[in-house]
Amino acid sequence: MVRKAFKMKVYEDKIEEYTKRHNPIWPELKEVLKNHGVRNYNIFLDTESCFLSGYAEIESEVKWNEIANTEICKKWWQYMATLMETNEDSSPVSTELKHLFYME
Amino acid sequence: MVRKAFKMKVYEDKIEEYTKRHNPIWPELKEVLKNHGVRNYNIFLDTESCFLSGYAEIESEVKWNEIANTEICKKWWQYMATLMETNEDSSPVSTELKHLFYME
Repeated sequence: MVRKAFKMKVYEDKIEEYTKRHNPIWPELKEVLKNHGVRNYNIFLDTESCFLSGYAEIESEVKWNEIANTEICKKWWQYMATLMETNEDSSPVSTELKHLFYME
Repeated sequence: MVRKAFKMKVYEDKIEEYTKRHNPIWPELKEVLKNHGVRNYNIFLDTESCFLSGYAEIESEVKWNEIANTEICKKWWQYMATLMETNEDSSPVSTELKHLFYME
């Protein structure tokens, strides 16, 4: 299991909508995440900078990256694209954070 | 149980030392954290901004805040104070992140 963290950026005037769309996320997306070994997935917001900080416990990076190839994930990205900084394929701009410390 | 996240800032030229001092942390500090209900405590680094992103599962905010009153925590803060942005009492400048999303 890998403890993974990454940052993304939401637009300030879209925070409310971003939060709303995540509570709940689409059941089909949740199923895909679960089937790809994602557990304990949390997203936090830094209200000062509008950076989102994701934390998840994943089975492997390979399985995590496979999520991007699913139809439901691509649909989700398109649905969310107006709310956050995205790449050309509508995926969120995401920067990996480096794991420095862990205590059980 | 509360899923808690917060950011702190390490100085760029102190990242190596910060990492070193956390692997391992003092056993006495670890014991205090455990005794105050802290579990699954992770610290990640955003190498672009030098922000540290902490994620922990805590018993309660009350017990978490009690850690700051222990001698060992105060000593730890003093030990770490030259490596990161701190307040007048040597505690790290720490900003709470807002929990937006959770999936089991």
